[in-house]
Amino acid sequence: MRMLDIILKKKEGKVLTEEELRFFITGYVKGEIPDYQVSSLLMAICFQGMNKEEIATLTELMEYSGETIDLTSIKGIKVDKHSTGGVGDKTSMVLGPLVASCGVKLAKMSGRGLGHTGGTLDKLESIPGMSISLTKERFIDQVNKIGMSIIGQTATIVPADKKLYALRDVTGTVESIPLIASSIMSKKLASGSDTILLDVKFGSGAFMKDLDSARELARTMVEIGDSLSRDTRAILTDMNQPLGCAIGNNLEVIEAVNTLKGKGPQDLVELCVKAGAIMLEQAKVCSRANAEELLKNKIENGEAFEKLCQFVEAQGGYFVS
Amino acid sequence: MRMLDIILKKKEGKVLTEEELRFFITGYVKGEIPDYQVSSLLMAICFQGMNKEEIATLTELMEYSGETIDLTSIKGIKVDKHSTGGVGDKTSMVLGPLVASCGVKLAKMSGRGLGHTGGTLDKLESIPGMSISLTKERFIDQVNKIGMSIIGQTATIVPADKKLYALRDVTGTVESIPLIASSIMSKKLASGSDTILLDVKFGSGAFMKDLDSARELARTMVEIGDSLSRDTRAILTDMNQPLGCAIGNNLEVIEAVNTLKGKGPQDLVELCVKAGAIMLEQAKVCSRANAEELLKNKIENGEAFEKLCQFVEAQGGYFVS
Repeated sequence: MRMLDIILKKKEGKVLTEEELRFFITGYVKGEIPDYQVSSLLMAICFQGMNKEEIATLTELMEYSGETIDLTSIKGIKVDKHSTGGVGDKTSMVLGPLVASCGVKLAKMSGRGLGHTGGTLDKLESIPGMSISLTKERFIDQVNKIGMSIIGQTATIVPADKKLYALRDVTGTVESIPLIASSIMSKKLASGSDTILLDVKFGSGAFMKDLDSARELARTMVEIGDSLSRDTRAILTDMNQPLGCAIGNNLEVIEAVNTLKGKGPQDLVELCVKAGAIMLEQAKVCSRANAEELLKNKIENGEAFEKLCQFVEAQGGYFVS
Repeated sequence: MRMLDIILKKKEGKVLTEEELRFFITGYVKGEIPDYQVSSLLMAICFQGMNKEEIATLTELMEYSGETIDLTSIKGIKVDKHSTGGVGDKTSMVLGPLVASCGVKLAKMSGRGLGHTGGTLDKLESIPGMSISLTKERFIDQVNKIGMSIIGQTATIVPADKKLYALRDVTGTVESIPLIASSIMSKKLASGSDTILLDVKFGSGAFMKDLDSARELARTMVEIGDSLSRDTRAILTDMNQPLGCAIGNNLEVIEAVNTLKGKGPQDLVELCVKAGAIMLEQAKVCSRANAEELLKNKIENGEAFEKLCQFVEAQGGYFVS
């Protein structure tokens, strides 16, 4: 098998087989296939796309290109969520404690800021003392103990995406639904949770500028989850205006704190309650109809904010009041 | 200016400016732009194409990326021809001596075999003693003395094409009319002749499989020549069957010898007379109507074969009878 033939096949719009995708991914991770052949294939994928089966296969190959996280020692259904990112998006810092206060287990690996959007890790690190690099044992132990942890991706998870993403970033091949979808889903799948909720943002403050492409990305990622038997759902949310009122790592932490204290901006509260309700349903805690009431109660009675404090403290952080 | 923005612009189907193309070509030749960005741009060009102005600009930038050959010390109009290559194509070895015997000056740089097609240099080198690496002085001197020389490209001519071609070869970006046309024409223009005749082959034994794409390539190259004020013409010839009867470097030399001795296969003779007539017209030796008669006479009276012998002898070769 030759990488050149795989490039030419995709350039002609043909469907790549599992063997061909495996040759490409394993060869690239091992350093046997040079960047210049991969970037040429990626550009051909930008133009010719990939079908449902190709995307699922590519995602699975990427998922298993490195270590996968085994969360079976955490009791119960482990939920995960992912936002495609937007300006002022501090959802994870609110939603994590919120669903964890309802008894859901959230063992989440987050990312850094990308392009013009911020990243949960950067925001968390603006809290003094806060560590986002825990050992796997401490990570799992913390989720068992307090119901949640958010850490950075380990160096050994999905190396194929690390290499591919770095290359896509400098070769004009970021914007491609099959490539975006497989990149996100490979990391979510390798992170080991039982359910995935995708918050796909559209509008001027997001990567997907219009609703149609956001919908296609969401559909593609849910199809990947379905193909690989992982409960995956998606919501589409508007990012034509920043989420909430605060933009900037520490300002967003403060807004997250305020939201969990019941003083959050309406758009952020609504999004977190809506997304949280789906996550509670995915975790089989309660029906979506009952979930919203439960979530709002957890904010009102202070348990959600208390969960945030437990989470921050467990990872070494402290709030300066 | 950033290479990434140039890639994205072409990916979106926009027209690249002279400054952008210059940034790309000079940066790549200097080694400042990495292969992986160039291959991604090349693939985008394969899908989005280039307009007439972009192609002419790219060609000119490539032409001047290295040394250009100054043939002004050769008296008269210097003609050049180029075949896009096909199985059994030994045209240059016949056509060169044929037009030179009519008083035309042919100072030609040829190439090696490419893919499944042979190359004139490889064929000439199958003649014992024959050298295809002459100094520029000896090359020019020989053309002044006997009317023709065929040598390999010097190492310093069109370095942009050398790098680009090597990359295209392994990244699935060979087949693109703008890239093929600029590659061929940059070398022909840098070689310094006053006129260019392009023999664009189509069919199963050629790179262009169908007449339509061959016609588009021919049209594109003639447009480049027109834009850059070089008398450029093209013929389209059928390569669904090998040209002549012999295939293989030395066998093709023998067939070329026989053709110049008046015992050539009909298809090869016809092609050489047709192409030769255009070259004589380009060189203002005579009208095309009178040219065919003149060329056939040069074969019959032995002068064309005599010119081949002079050419081979001048470059150190000898025929083993």
